[in-house]
Amino acid sequence: MDVMDQFEQLARGSDEILIEDHFKERLASGRKLRVKAGFDPTAPDLHLGHTVLLNKLKQFQDLGHEVIFLIGDFTGMIGDPTGKNVTRKPLSKEDVLENAQTYQNQIFKILDPEQTTVAFNSQWMGQFDASQLIQLAAKHTVARMLERDDFNKRYTGGQPIAIHEFLYPLIQGYDSVALEADIELGGTDQKFNLLVGRHLQEHYGQKPQIILTMPILEGLDGIQKMSKSLNNYIGITDKPNDMFGKLMSISDDLMWRYFELLSFRPMFEINQWKTQCDQGANPRDIKVKLAQEIIERFHDKHAAEQALAAFEARFKRGELPDDLQVKEIQTPEDGYPIANLLKDAGLTQSTSESLRMLKQGAVKIDSEKVSDTKHRLQAGTEHVYQVGKRRIAKIRLV
Amino acid sequence: MDVMDQFEQLARGSDEILIEDHFKERLASGRKLRVKAGFDPTAPDLHLGHTVLLNKLKQFQDLGHEVIFLIGDFTGMIGDPTGKNVTRKPLSKEDVLENAQTYQNQIFKILDPEQTTVAFNSQWMGQFDASQLIQLAAKHTVARMLERDDFNKRYTGGQPIAIHEFLYPLIQGYDSVALEADIELGGTDQKFNLLVGRHLQEHYGQKPQIILTMPILEGLDGIQKMSKSLNNYIGITDKPNDMFGKLMSISDDLMWRYFELLSFRPMFEINQWKTQCDQGANPRDIKVKLAQEIIERFHDKHAAEQALAAFEARFKRGELPDDLQVKEIQTPEDGYPIANLLKDAGLTQSTSESLRMLKQGAVKIDSEKVSDTKHRLQAGTEHVYQVGKRRIAKIRLV
Repeated sequence: MDVMDQFEQLARGSDEILIEDHFKERLASGRKLRVKAGFDPTAPDLHLGHTVLLNKLKQFQDLGHEVIFLIGDFTGMIGDPTGKNVTRKPLSKEDVLENAQTYQNQIFKILDPEQTTVAFNSQWMGQFDASQLIQLAAKHTVARMLERDDFNKRYTGGQPIAIHEFLYPLIQGYDSVALEADIELGGTDQKFNLLVGRHLQEHYGQKPQIILTMPILEGLDGIQKMSKSLNNYIGITDKPNDMFGKLMSISDDLMWRYFELLSFRPMFEINQWKTQCDQGANPRDIKVKLAQEIIERFHDKHAAEQALAAFEARFKRGELPDDLQVKEIQTPEDGYPIANLLKDAGLTQSTSESLRMLKQGAVKIDSEKVSDTKHRLQAGTEHVYQVGKRRIAKIRLV
Repeated sequence: MDVMDQFEQLARGSDEILIEDHFKERLASGRKLRVKAGFDPTAPDLHLGHTVLLNKLKQFQDLGHEVIFLIGDFTGMIGDPTGKNVTRKPLSKEDVLENAQTYQNQIFKILDPEQTTVAFNSQWMGQFDASQLIQLAAKHTVARMLERDDFNKRYTGGQPIAIHEFLYPLIQGYDSVALEADIELGGTDQKFNLLVGRHLQEHYGQKPQIILTMPILEGLDGIQKMSKSLNNYIGITDKPNDMFGKLMSISDDLMWRYFELLSFRPMFEINQWKTQCDQGANPRDIKVKLAQEIIERFHDKHAAEQALAAFEARFKRGELPDDLQVKEIQTPEDGYPIANLLKDAGLTQSTSESLRMLKQGAVKIDSEKVSDTKHRLQAGTEHVYQVGKRRIAKIRLV
């Protein structure tokens, strides 16, 4: 493929590329480029937001480049030495390997294992002694570190920054030296750290890596970033019907954004559909294509077809209105008893009516009959609840 | 000795003691205290300014405590990794050992070798790996480090601070942990670093060390700190006559300061002399006692007596006025030819008169005849120059 075509494809959806001309030069060299992306060694539970970066890595692979999936286990095994951050407990070697396996089970739904090198930075950082770390620390200044947005906010806001926190970006940067990375990918929030990598490579006599940042994906609400804690996400292990329902619920604007960042279809095709919608085509039909592609990627073609069939069947039976709005309901810690939920959602007048309807077989969750009056619903779920034919609500438990 | 007497003696001349009450408690415990003082591993050439601290260590020894003379060879062997500071080139293990030997040759003129432990921080820091250094770095904050006076000035003044510079005070502080120091001594300019030691000891579950800072000694001018580069110093390897001459040249005020910080005589005796001078005694006679004590310490009793005798002889022969003022003269790089110097100092009318007087044997330097017309004087020297009987000048070449 011609260099400009490669560049266009790789630049798709990216937030920033530094330095574009150097990137084109490296692509023109015809070399197999070393493409680095770093990941935390914490237990991963990937959602579509994480796949934005993985998709970009996949594009590099499709063009014949080598992807290095770097797990930052060295710092992970140290954890947060201040002991203040409970989410950063030190991980054992075993934890790290287990998490890495979980990662691989997930990422290889996108990446080609044959063209992926999984690396651990403990391979080189574990050999570092204190004196080498001091020499690394000499290669950056306090002032430049305090320019990083989050450090700056904490420093000026009087929030403590422990000194080791200044070492972590240096270690991350040194990984690029150890790997002789040609290019590093990361989220826009990683830009500072990726630049440290460039800086250190120059210090160590290497050509500084290209950096390519990808935007942070918006969640189903189209506003906040996709995240588990905001419950606006699609997990890559979600069931086909859930994926389908969630994707069909997004706005048309967000659909085009998702196409750009999540679909592997070529942009010219997507742009054609956009034109068709502008001329009156129903965006819902296009949304179906997106949902099908995503389900096929994380499950298979058959699952994608079934999810579509189930969705269409519900429409044909007139069970579900097209424009059902999601309602969020706060969930008690030990889950929501179905009878109470139906009442609180306004689908019944009282819990006793709920119980009666359940016993009569008049209650459905996602078109499946439910009669167990002890059934409990957990936070994080999203379903369509029906009582009889008319009373319908789409409820996300939070 | 009673605790309060010990305290009084150890507090003599000190700038600050933190925390006084804890210090008294430790003295009262009757334990042999571990007294730490850290030194750079660079080639030492000690002058009286350095001995202020050594004298204090000696007082601790005289009271039965253990002095740990710590050589910071670990960081010395790294040098200045930014490569910007040419005076901090990395030292080899051999350099360090050679410097340590030179140190010992000098310090044992004051300290008792039997009660001195010489330690090198590479003993523990050399075992540190990167992960341990990171954990150490986690124990202090960026904000507190930037409170240090020199860091603060550089940061606010836009001068770069390399990140490894933040690690050095931590390593110095960790030395106190490794040594389980009860008390650390240092110059007033070291206070911040000594406090880091306290802080880290608490982190590592030890009782924080007492810190005792000693003032920086003024040089012969009584104003600027004693330093080789300012040429206002008395080296501890200076010849007896030079020591004598230099000490006799200091002001009376400075003499009392030197007594407090450099003499081992008890304060009550010194205070008695002060009273005598206030009542009319000649301070010169007291100054002689100071000069005698210092020469005896760094040479011997005989040398001290000879230096006094030579000094007195010059007075008796009427050769030297009592109140000769020192004149400073700028020296050319390759030294001052004697004939030119005599002319420039106003002792002769011309260089040809200088040459004539030299050949006639009418020129003396420090009462010694000089007839070599090619003789050159170097910067850093201070002598009494005489041409005939009447023309006399005390000249310091700078």
